[in-house]
Amino acid sequence: MALKSNLDLAFDCDNFPYYSDSPEIYLAKLAEYYHFKLEGCDATLGYMPARIATQMPINKHWSRDDERKTLTFQPRDDEGAPVVDFESRNWILADFLYEVREKKIFQVLNGWRSERFPIYGPQKETLLSMERSATPLFGVVTYGVHMTGYVETDQGLKIWAPRRALNKQTYPGMMDNTVAGGLAIGEKPFECLIREAEEEASLPADLVRTAQACGAVTYFLVRDPKAGGETDLCQPEVEYVYDLKMPPEITPQPSDNEAIDFQLLTIEEVKDAMAAGKFKPNCAHVLLDFFMRHGILTPENEPDYVEILAKVHRRLEFPTI
Amino acid sequence: MALKSNLDLAFDCDNFPYYSDSPEIYLAKLAEYYHFKLEGCDATLGYMPARIATQMPINKHWSRDDERKTLTFQPRDDEGAPVVDFESRNWILADFLYEVREKKIFQVLNGWRSERFPIYGPQKETLLSMERSATPLFGVVTYGVHMTGYVETDQGLKIWAPRRALNKQTYPGMMDNTVAGGLAIGEKPFECLIREAEEEASLPADLVRTAQACGAVTYFLVRDPKAGGETDLCQPEVEYVYDLKMPPEITPQPSDNEAIDFQLLTIEEVKDAMAAGKFKPNCAHVLLDFFMRHGILTPENEPDYVEILAKVHRRLEFPTI
Repeated sequence: MALKSNLDLAFDCDNFPYYSDSPEIYLAKLAEYYHFKLEGCDATLGYMPARIATQMPINKHWSRDDERKTLTFQPRDDEGAPVVDFESRNWILADFLYEVREKKIFQVLNGWRSERFPIYGPQKETLLSMERSATPLFGVVTYGVHMTGYVETDQGLKIWAPRRALNKQTYPGMMDNTVAGGLAIGEKPFECLIREAEEEASLPADLVRTAQACGAVTYFLVRDPKAGGETDLCQPEVEYVYDLKMPPEITPQPSDNEAIDFQLLTIEEVKDAMAAGKFKPNCAHVLLDFFMRHGILTPENEPDYVEILAKVHRRLEFPTI
Repeated sequence: MALKSNLDLAFDCDNFPYYSDSPEIYLAKLAEYYHFKLEGCDATLGYMPARIATQMPINKHWSRDDERKTLTFQPRDDEGAPVVDFESRNWILADFLYEVREKKIFQVLNGWRSERFPIYGPQKETLLSMERSATPLFGVVTYGVHMTGYVETDQGLKIWAPRRALNKQTYPGMMDNTVAGGLAIGEKPFECLIREAEEEASLPADLVRTAQACGAVTYFLVRDPKAGGETDLCQPEVEYVYDLKMPPEITPQPSDNEAIDFQLLTIEEVKDAMAAGKFKPNCAHVLLDFFMRHGILTPENEPDYVEILAKVHRRLEFPTI
């Protein structure tokens, strides 16, 4: 198998076309999708493949416009009046998604998570919450945290990398970041990080509190078979990134069956595994950002430096927090 | 004067519209510009305000198409045949720009720098070199380096910030980054940094070699009066960023009259000066990136975190190296 360049890795994760690269290609891709909307909000909240939008078994709470290619959630009460209350809307959406899941139309809903993810509007207001496994069907922006735990050694920086369990629904057996997790509604990134570090890597909260916020990576992924479930689903994501300098005597341990084990790898070993396609795509994205912030990739040694930087910080075309 | 938010600061520097925010606004703005092109290369290399493109006193080496809104450099030899040799093309362009300068049509050329900046094509090939002061007329991407020199003190991190000389052509009297400079053709970023650190701040090369490459900020600036010269000129830029941890006993000193003096400021003092609009816009951009990489701005304390991150890493719509 051909080795991947760092630009290839950035494309693996950020693979929705850019308007500025080619308006024709971008608009042709866009034409394959419906716009997911909420009644009363002008913004498009996500893109849905046309076959997903038309297969969605909509009821009175939805309207689909096949000319304008929109699927709009417009919750109604028993009298047919619009429901504008936040919690009531969320329950109507949750009940609908339960029904869709029961009908076994969409594979991704087999990975039901019972976690509610937030959907934000143009003023950063929380518009809705949605079951996590349904978010790629609607193509809405999701949020998470990724932490790189590293150790300073005589052989230079080393990074703790887990291997994902073989029974994970998404990207089984691939390599991952030290700690990573999704942000549920109402959860703050740093709180989420501390919780996930305990659950996934058995890292003590006191240590994780010394982690440093270092920005975020953002990307617009169109899912391929490795993601599991339907392909061509849109997954625009924001991953808040943290660095944790770890003392050599601490070894992360799997505690929730998400990981098989943790390995302490040199930078060269990490780079080789990335080039061989062994890392989950968004983890490679986070590592590219880590490498650029830490002077491992430089303008002199990475020919695609500027393009990679922009692709790991993509401006998403949907409202974000 | 109202204080600027960090998002305001990001907009001060990255103020060309985005297609995804509003295709209408973006396309209306674009319609005000001509596309600068080189014969034989499909890509647009920069945007020129229509009044600049039409005032440009073109000769046989140029063709202007007012329908398609293009201004194309098509160098010709004495027999009228295309000139494809790199150095010959550069001399034809240089001679042309000298003549334009003599005609005193454009104010920005009064700030003639006698520095040649590179213009890259879609395969990262160097297409042309251009006198630095002319680059905003053609709206081409320019490259530079910015280094933040900081000291770890009992009062936390402090940053060395110079004040620009009052006789600078651009942004006189404003606050600047510890070291900053433009990348001439053929120059590597790290070499440029070492040279500029010596020239502008009297910093020894041995110390500056310990600076760490930390990425780049990119933005698409439309020039206002503070930039000097014509307004509405496009200035898409890539600034490679470096951090230098400095020992407390070293004090940067102006050596080339670019700066009045250097001040060692606390983070709060830097933030206050940024909010008061005292920093040159692209320096504030670099500091926003520094603050996000160093955990000073976090997802919890900066409401516009995700948007600022994307704006300081804008994907430019022209070829870049």
